[in-house]
Amino acid sequence: MAMKLYCFGESGHSYKAALAMTLAGVDWEPVWVDFFRGGARSPEFLAVNEMGECPVLVDGDVTLAQSGVILDYLTEKTGKFGGSTPDGRREVLRWVLWDNHKFSSQIGMLRFQMNFLPAEKRSADVVAFIAGRVKSAFKTLETHLQGRDWIVGDALTNADLSCCSYLFYTEDFGFDRSEYPNIDRWLDNISALPGWKHPYELMRRALPDA
Amino acid sequence: MAMKLYCFGESGHSYKAALAMTLAGVDWEPVWVDFFRGGARSPEFLAVNEMGECPVLVDGDVTLAQSGVILDYLTEKTGKFGGSTPDGRREVLRWVLWDNHKFSSQIGMLRFQMNFLPAEKRSADVVAFIAGRVKSAFKTLETHLQGRDWIVGDALTNADLSCCSYLFYTEDFGFDRSEYPNIDRWLDNISALPGWKHPYELMRRALPDA
Repeated sequence: MAMKLYCFGESGHSYKAALAMTLAGVDWEPVWVDFFRGGARSPEFLAVNEMGECPVLVDGDVTLAQSGVILDYLTEKTGKFGGSTPDGRREVLRWVLWDNHKFSSQIGMLRFQMNFLPAEKRSADVVAFIAGRVKSAFKTLETHLQGRDWIVGDALTNADLSCCSYLFYTEDFGFDRSEYPNIDRWLDNISALPGWKHPYELMRRALPDA
Repeated sequence: MAMKLYCFGESGHSYKAALAMTLAGVDWEPVWVDFFRGGARSPEFLAVNEMGECPVLVDGDVTLAQSGVILDYLTEKTGKFGGSTPDGRREVLRWVLWDNHKFSSQIGMLRFQMNFLPAEKRSADVVAFIAGRVKSAFKTLETHLQGRDWIVGDALTNADLSCCSYLFYTEDFGFDRSEYPNIDRWLDNISALPGWKHPYELMRRALPDA
């Protein structure tokens, strides 16, 4: 039976799980969530995930939320992307946590503020505040990728899948690949993987095309 | 040899590790970081942790950053606080990730803005923005703790250690325990544990007492 992923196209966190399953050859199907019209805050959805967030993975009796947990579960099922040693496994978890804490979380907020929030609700102070945090995080990743093809070890892991997710979207959030040559090269490594797909190819968008 | 924790008193993320080690009876000592004067951004510190953050745990040859990874490592060493089943283990990881993504991370920023940032640099818009996210996260945790003594299962886990950390500080960040009776009761469960200590008892403050 195919795994089900509750998701929507704009969700970078969902894309982490969708891309992991696609690259691992897992049989899965998306269940579209009408996110921008409250689809993740409805009583029905909260019964699936009390955190009111996408993605949610359902695999038979197992229901999981939080992309980092879903990636960990997929590693358990497929043996892929988890790191090849105890040190490597911890290093993968470190970057997944950093991504949730300092990187994707901040980028997601910034992209939302700059693209999906009605202009009259936008605050220049808030955008500048988050943009400052995002810039600092980009610097951390750019420095780490100096001389490296992958974030941990010598192959794709959940660290890459987690950190890359928002960076393939084209909506403006102040990210210009040419400013970060190591990140640029690393993203090329990822999108060159056999079977790689853009988020909007894997998941239906919640907003209509502009 | 005692484990070393690079930390400072105001760091809720450091407190997670400090409290875990204290409650597990691990032999450890704090290494004070002069955080508010750039102590985590110095070349010396960046050589220890490229992410430029506290806490960092050093145990012999092992150096680890990110509180969630440190908690996971301590569970490996002590057998404690990791959840007692595979489902429980994943549920612990889920809440640790949620905490890093939606809870401690946001509370940390809000407390910083409201207490440690010079008033002339403070933005009312930014404070209101983060406060809104924090309030929504408090609601998620309050709902989850209905009828529960602990976040996962029937004993203290890393989920509790991660989520509770900022809530024992008395600096104002708009948190009033009386508004969240389940969280209030749960915090009492934690501070009633034998050996529990307040963050400022475990780690030297980076700012002088007011």
